[in-house]
Amino acid sequence: MKLSIIIIGDEILIGQVTDTNSGAIARTFGPLGWDIAGVRTVPDDAAAIRHAVTAALSEAHLVVCTGGLGPTKDDITKHTLAEIFGGPMRRDPEVTANIERVFALRGLAMNELTAAQADVPASCRVIQNRFGTAPVMWFERDGRVVISMPGVPFETEGMLPEVAACVARRFHSDTVLRHRCLMVGGISESALAGRLAPWESALPPHMHLAYLPAPGLIRLRLDGRGVDAEVLDAEMQRQIDSAKAIIGPELRYEGDATAAEIALDYCRRHAYTLGTAESCTGGTIAQRITAIAGCSDVFLGSVVSYANSVKTGLLGVDNATLDACGAVSREVVEQMADGARRALGCDCAIATSGIAGPGGATPDKPVGTVWIACATPSATVSRLLRLPGNRARVIDRAATEALLLLSGQVAH
Amino acid sequence: MKLSIIIIGDEILIGQVTDTNSGAIARTFGPLGWDIAGVRTVPDDAAAIRHAVTAALSEAHLVVCTGGLGPTKDDITKHTLAEIFGGPMRRDPEVTANIERVFALRGLAMNELTAAQADVPASCRVIQNRFGTAPVMWFERDGRVVISMPGVPFETEGMLPEVAACVARRFHSDTVLRHRCLMVGGISESALAGRLAPWESALPPHMHLAYLPAPGLIRLRLDGRGVDAEVLDAEMQRQIDSAKAIIGPELRYEGDATAAEIALDYCRRHAYTLGTAESCTGGTIAQRITAIAGCSDVFLGSVVSYANSVKTGLLGVDNATLDACGAVSREVVEQMADGARRALGCDCAIATSGIAGPGGATPDKPVGTVWIACATPSATVSRLLRLPGNRARVIDRAATEALLLLSGQVAH
Repeated sequence: MKLSIIIIGDEILIGQVTDTNSGAIARTFGPLGWDIAGVRTVPDDAAAIRHAVTAALSEAHLVVCTGGLGPTKDDITKHTLAEIFGGPMRRDPEVTANIERVFALRGLAMNELTAAQADVPASCRVIQNRFGTAPVMWFERDGRVVISMPGVPFETEGMLPEVAACVARRFHSDTVLRHRCLMVGGISESALAGRLAPWESALPPHMHLAYLPAPGLIRLRLDGRGVDAEVLDAEMQRQIDSAKAIIGPELRYEGDATAAEIALDYCRRHAYTLGTAESCTGGTIAQRITAIAGCSDVFLGSVVSYANSVKTGLLGVDNATLDACGAVSREVVEQMADGARRALGCDCAIATSGIAGPGGATPDKPVGTVWIACATPSATVSRLLRLPGNRARVIDRAATEALLLLSGQVAH
Repeated sequence: MKLSIIIIGDEILIGQVTDTNSGAIARTFGPLGWDIAGVRTVPDDAAAIRHAVTAALSEAHLVVCTGGLGPTKDDITKHTLAEIFGGPMRRDPEVTANIERVFALRGLAMNELTAAQADVPASCRVIQNRFGTAPVMWFERDGRVVISMPGVPFETEGMLPEVAACVARRFHSDTVLRHRCLMVGGISESALAGRLAPWESALPPHMHLAYLPAPGLIRLRLDGRGVDAEVLDAEMQRQIDSAKAIIGPELRYEGDATAAEIALDYCRRHAYTLGTAESCTGGTIAQRITAIAGCSDVFLGSVVSYANSVKTGLLGVDNATLDACGAVSREVVEQMADGARRALGCDCAIATSGIAGPGGATPDKPVGTVWIACATPSATVSRLLRLPGNRARVIDRAATEALLLLSGQVAH
């Protein structure tokens, strides 16, 4: 069945904000068997919204809109949907209670603009927004469903599982869907695709392999459809076992995991504590680890040594080494990793030092030159990366590679 | 005049890749006076592309497409445009020469798939792609223009200035467009909207205010249109000055800036260096600062003191204070900020200590309880936040508020 997405908001249309909601919606509904027919991004304009909803309804069974639900007068999605689906506006007492709860939590006073967020078209059913004040609205006509969700990505992403569950109940499908992931590092997507090609070609028609490459870590997702869960699970397991054997040492993790989760998992299996010493990644590795709830059993902390004075002062990097080799060198990054173990009192440490750009390059150390290291109780290892792309991409990739170095040094 | 954008590609539709081309196109053409009528994201499917181009041409004078120009068989944009605009394919010798040049640079061998990238519809005019192999194609019919650009963001962004220059020559437009931003913190969107309502209602019809709220920091954008740039600039300035007077102390910055950019700007104006001591934000503040190129004149580094042992060991937080007040307390967060100034040797330090959840809460310190502090050479100030939302949101908001505290303490 087909799903069409409508993203509403001037700020997205003029390129001030990058839309991530359409991707989140597609990633939620795609694996549930929905075909994404298209995405329309339209301004906060009644005629444009009306036109988009009509066009989307003509091509899809389900239309998911986001945006234009705020309390200010440029937010007109709700009134436009009321025009399309008919019925007056009504003030919903449960939405009012939810808004009051959210405002009380935030210590803010209600006002009429906010209270009016509880006005919903009488033609819709409300799903309470547990992540904000604007209600999720469900409209239905001639067997087709339009769902209006908030524009704030945090709220939309938070509500998507509940909304997807409502959709699954409404369009009850008997199909059993299964997804299995393998995380693969240290190989290019095309090289991996070449290695897996014979296996992939032999997959039965109800199974499909998707490559989800991110810098430094490829997520392979095997999707399967069937009618009997037990049969499908056994079949998926056989295929995954075959794929693992073909991938070999480049397999980083079985399941869906980020590089930070793989590093935490490695430390937990060895009962190690972990810290980081970051120069060019500037706290990105620590941030990615601490984004994971419950990391405190493993992660002790970090020294972001952006300035050389911090490398020497807190991490004990040798001034003579800095002078002789430069901050971006094997010697310094290994001293940083060893120094972080001492300074933070952790068993393992991950360290980075490199040139993220656009400035700071030298003829022999161009932008993208990054040394990464990790120190464990038994060894300190390091690796030189030469990464493509702009500053954000270099930092992102360096953080991923450094996190993977920890478990990879043992796997190899 | 109106511009419509079409983004072509299965990988974007299914949420595997986030589209950034539509934003880049809008940011290029918006300030040149083009109204963005809408963005359509469609699959690599001839019928869908044909339908989108027809619909876009019915609403806009200019249609810019990206994607579907690669050498593989799922890339069909070119052939679909040939169907729409007529004419056979022809092999363009200049495009062939460009492809050979790019391949030589990358040290790759040409093959027939690649050579076929030089086949273009006879009905189009070619603009050479100086950033890759797929040519930019310009189609025209009944005074309306369709431009097909590559999907790779680096290539599209690289070619946009040249394409925009061609468009400006073709449609000599008289409309002048201006955007001005104000960053506002410490107030809810609805309270701010209430305060600004009389001013907003009195705006002339050629000006429009948009609210772009992000956790902790609201971006207000005033858009204006005119025919005379000087008159419009003066008018925008008057309106911005009035808005600033109404916003008062909650104004954080004039212009478009992130919280990290506002903090860096504050330090540069005072010739201060900066460091952070992060517990619950786990490196997020350092990561946001170091994401900004050229931050090293201000930013020295960070101690991510996730474990209490790091708070005492590296930041000199007093064990007795930790025992008496707990890590999430005014006393500890102020000691962290002061300790970071000493440990990192920086003039100013930003510190955070809180409960990001989902675990770690106590009856008097629920999830979302965060103490933030900043220390400057003249004072150390702190603030208690009670933040809504999940772990990611608490961390995000705490980082923003802590960054804003640095400049805000002086503004108040």
